[in-house]
Amino acid sequence: MKIGIAQLNPVVGDIEGNVEKIKSVFLKLKGKVDLIVFPELFLTGYPPRDLLERKEFIKITARGIKDVVNISKKSKRTGILFGTPAIRKNKKGKGLSNTALLVYNGKIVFRQDKSLLPYYDVFDETRYFEPAKAIKVFNFKDERLGILICEDAWGKYKINGNAIYKIDPAKILAEKGASIFINIAASPFQIDKDSVRYKIIRDNARAHKLPFIFVNQVGGNDELIFDGRSMFIDPKGMVVKVLPAFKEHIAIVNSKAKGKGKYTCMDRIKAVHDALILGIKDYMRKCGFSKAVVALSGGIDSSLTAYLATKAIGSKNVLGLFMPSPYTSKESKSYVKALAKNLGIELKIVPITPIYQAYKKSLKKELKIGRSVDKTLENLQARIRGNVLMAFSNKYGYLVLSTGNKSELAVGYCTLYGDLTGGLAVLADVPKTMVYKLANYVNSKKEIIPLGIIKRSPSAELKPGQRDQDVLPPYDILDCILYYYLEEGKSINEMAKMGLDRKIIKQVIDMLNKNEYKRRQMPVGLKVTSKAFGSGRRFPIAAKYYFI
Amino acid sequence: MKIGIAQLNPVVGDIEGNVEKIKSVFLKLKGKVDLIVFPELFLTGYPPRDLLERKEFIKITARGIKDVVNISKKSKRTGILFGTPAIRKNKKGKGLSNTALLVYNGKIVFRQDKSLLPYYDVFDETRYFEPAKAIKVFNFKDERLGILICEDAWGKYKINGNAIYKIDPAKILAEKGASIFINIAASPFQIDKDSVRYKIIRDNARAHKLPFIFVNQVGGNDELIFDGRSMFIDPKGMVVKVLPAFKEHIAIVNSKAKGKGKYTCMDRIKAVHDALILGIKDYMRKCGFSKAVVALSGGIDSSLTAYLATKAIGSKNVLGLFMPSPYTSKESKSYVKALAKNLGIELKIVPITPIYQAYKKSLKKELKIGRSVDKTLENLQARIRGNVLMAFSNKYGYLVLSTGNKSELAVGYCTLYGDLTGGLAVLADVPKTMVYKLANYVNSKKEIIPLGIIKRSPSAELKPGQRDQDVLPPYDILDCILYYYLEEGKSINEMAKMGLDRKIIKQVIDMLNKNEYKRRQMPVGLKVTSKAFGSGRRFPIAAKYYFI
Repeated sequence: MKIGIAQLNPVVGDIEGNVEKIKSVFLKLKGKVDLIVFPELFLTGYPPRDLLERKEFIKITARGIKDVVNISKKSKRTGILFGTPAIRKNKKGKGLSNTALLVYNGKIVFRQDKSLLPYYDVFDETRYFEPAKAIKVFNFKDERLGILICEDAWGKYKINGNAIYKIDPAKILAEKGASIFINIAASPFQIDKDSVRYKIIRDNARAHKLPFIFVNQVGGNDELIFDGRSMFIDPKGMVVKVLPAFKEHIAIVNSKAKGKGKYTCMDRIKAVHDALILGIKDYMRKCGFSKAVVALSGGIDSSLTAYLATKAIGSKNVLGLFMPSPYTSKESKSYVKALAKNLGIELKIVPITPIYQAYKKSLKKELKIGRSVDKTLENLQARIRGNVLMAFSNKYGYLVLSTGNKSELAVGYCTLYGDLTGGLAVLADVPKTMVYKLANYVNSKKEIIPLGIIKRSPSAELKPGQRDQDVLPPYDILDCILYYYLEEGKSINEMAKMGLDRKIIKQVIDMLNKNEYKRRQMPVGLKVTSKAFGSGRRFPIAAKYYFI
Repeated sequence: MKIGIAQLNPVVGDIEGNVEKIKSVFLKLKGKVDLIVFPELFLTGYPPRDLLERKEFIKITARGIKDVVNISKKSKRTGILFGTPAIRKNKKGKGLSNTALLVYNGKIVFRQDKSLLPYYDVFDETRYFEPAKAIKVFNFKDERLGILICEDAWGKYKINGNAIYKIDPAKILAEKGASIFINIAASPFQIDKDSVRYKIIRDNARAHKLPFIFVNQVGGNDELIFDGRSMFIDPKGMVVKVLPAFKEHIAIVNSKAKGKGKYTCMDRIKAVHDALILGIKDYMRKCGFSKAVVALSGGIDSSLTAYLATKAIGSKNVLGLFMPSPYTSKESKSYVKALAKNLGIELKIVPITPIYQAYKKSLKKELKIGRSVDKTLENLQARIRGNVLMAFSNKYGYLVLSTGNKSELAVGYCTLYGDLTGGLAVLADVPKTMVYKLANYVNSKKEIIPLGIIKRSPSAELKPGQRDQDVLPPYDILDCILYYYLEEGKSINEMAKMGLDRKIIKQVIDMLNKNEYKRRQMPVGLKVTSKAFGSGRRFPIAAKYYFI
């Protein structure tokens, strides 16, 4: 059987537009292949979130399904397999399934609901869907299709050593005589996930001696970035085809094909780089923005953010805004100018000193403002910059890209309504040490981010002589603690046993816990690690807890 | 059997403190009652959210359980029934249960896990817990206890006419011979919910001819406010005892007692009034704030917010900040002064005009600032105020209470980093029409909020002659649409059929959908309706959807 893999980028909620995408691929491939496969919940885009709770939305989805059925009439050879929410006949429970529909010759010929509904981290599928009542194989042409919907292939998945699911849909399908696995997915990107995903696919293929086709969504939807990386693995676990990451792609494979090579994992830094660019691009496009503004400080975070923005939407659509205060160094100014030149972006300079003076004058008495620059005055400067950025946004329609990194967000080394201002926090899930790696990657062929920016000691420049390292642990240690704590779930004791300084660990965890309120109000932040701040990490604020 | 109902206010995460609360009630009632009942997940407070994913936290919880067991040794008569997360022996799945433990004489004598895990609106229980494997009755003294954990009594609950659960734990317990239902709960407040709750309790009592004890958490935890209103209903559905709302209370009841009266529903407006006060009080206390600042504009929202703050933390702990701009009317100033006087709060005046001028001067060229006040300049003023508020907060440790109402938030008639600045959005779930009702309620005995404030036409006063009604539908119509759309899930068609103007409905829904990005960054907002913006409403931003 010839199968078309349609790795596409849907817009969440845009049923009509997503049906159009199906139609366009169908018209291109019809008659040439037996089946075209589209990703999970393709009709709505993934994740549709609480749109699924609107009954009008379910009606529009049902209409979209009919449209796909009509489209399928245009070929007697080619079937369409796609993901969509579907109403369950038995109304008990949520009344909806996360479903794969096989449409052929003007009819829905088969329906498989998803069995394993993820409900951890960013996933809330039990909020919307009931699991499948039955798992069946479907005879289509010369194959017996074993259809899995994303997590259905994760039947053996463990969290902290515990199997989280009670059944293994792939095993059930194999026992029922499937000749091929087809997995429609919306599996978001995170560092190293592609190799985990490959292993699960390969293990399923090998365990059941069946070929495995994985068709993944691509594109950015709010914080989630879908890398695509759809693939076809033969029964021995060898790679027949891997589709490119981070872009739409159509491939045709023969279900009986044998693979040759092993899977090549994506380069971690390149992958993050590409992911962030797609994340910016799609957030802007899908929100209707064409231009972005970035506050350039002469530091590495804002420089990297501006670079990524140029890659996402083109240099001519990026405005760099330099807003020096009395504590901004001369070097910062020259670095910003050099960066803007290298990136080919427009640079505007708005000194905030007169505004800062006006605030100080108005608040002098009430806030007992003296000579020294305290936290209040530091934050004030950051917030003036936020206000200026928003004024540019309001006036000209720029999206403000905020520039803070994950390490800062974690410990609260950032100002609410100041540097946290923006519609999208590009580096919100990128630890500072990885910001450096990304900057070096960007510079690997040519110096784009001025070397001086990479080499200088990080500073917020909000008071004289300030340096991040005066109040924070060295970033390599901070990031190490954050990784083990957030991503690996290690306790303070466990980290101390690994040789990290207990006092520093406690200091970091304490700062982390105390700053939940800032993160609650942060912009959407692009997720690239296994545990990002945002919808996948839900902590109380008005609480009292300590860890040991 | 004599039963103590302990309607208490735990602090989320504070296992030690919550165990102390159990101890204190136990020492008071031991020997006098046979059983003391504490709310759902009392050991951790509800909702503990992702704290449950930290294994150290589960360890500390396990230690807390041991402490309660030890406390129970101090009386041979009195048992303790309380809620806690508990580890499941079978590690498949989430590995945790939402559990009721009955501790007696230094031993855990019975454990009942929760069967029905809510996973809609603000509830995410399937994210953390596995449902009970078995539902059993426990013989304790002269009763056969049928223990339900909150939602377990909701077995017949329907959403949009569909039963959402497949089993009815109350029925199962009755069939197994329970002689009494004891429901430990953490059921949050929302308008009219107490009567829904009562009906469910009464229907269970009557259907199975059993007395029903409902022990609810009280207190504010982030956006959720728990009203308590614990109660004891006899087998005929008559009320034996109802505990007061919005405060801690201990009551002793006899399991065989017969009720006399019918349940009296809480007054809607008084209930919201009390709920908001508790919400402010607990958010501040549990976050460690003792003082709050409110930006007073002379409008009804900020006046009501300031009043509620004085009720929550006392007049001497509330600072009113009046920040006139060139467009602030004289009336506003006199209203603000009168209000501050009536409330007995300190008032400070910080005119923002000099700061506003400084911004305009600095941005004149870049933003082509002319004579007219456009959206950019309107927002600028709001953001200057946000900045000044935060400076007071940073300097003196005030919590900023933000003042916007639900109607504004819904349609985006508010400024990010401007009037949305703050740690807690007091009126975020209070529609404008209800703001008026609350203000009248406040004034029912005495004019506290100056009548002129209530009577004047609402205006943001960000440009000359501005009035809310120039750009928004009348608030009674707006709120009506928002209610039917958000709370009742009505479609545009359905609302049009009800006689609402289709054009206005579309305008409102369109504004609502377009402003998701603002609400994503709003402060924690106190929930009082069945559908609040915040953790219970999860919509995508980078999306394209329309409703019919």
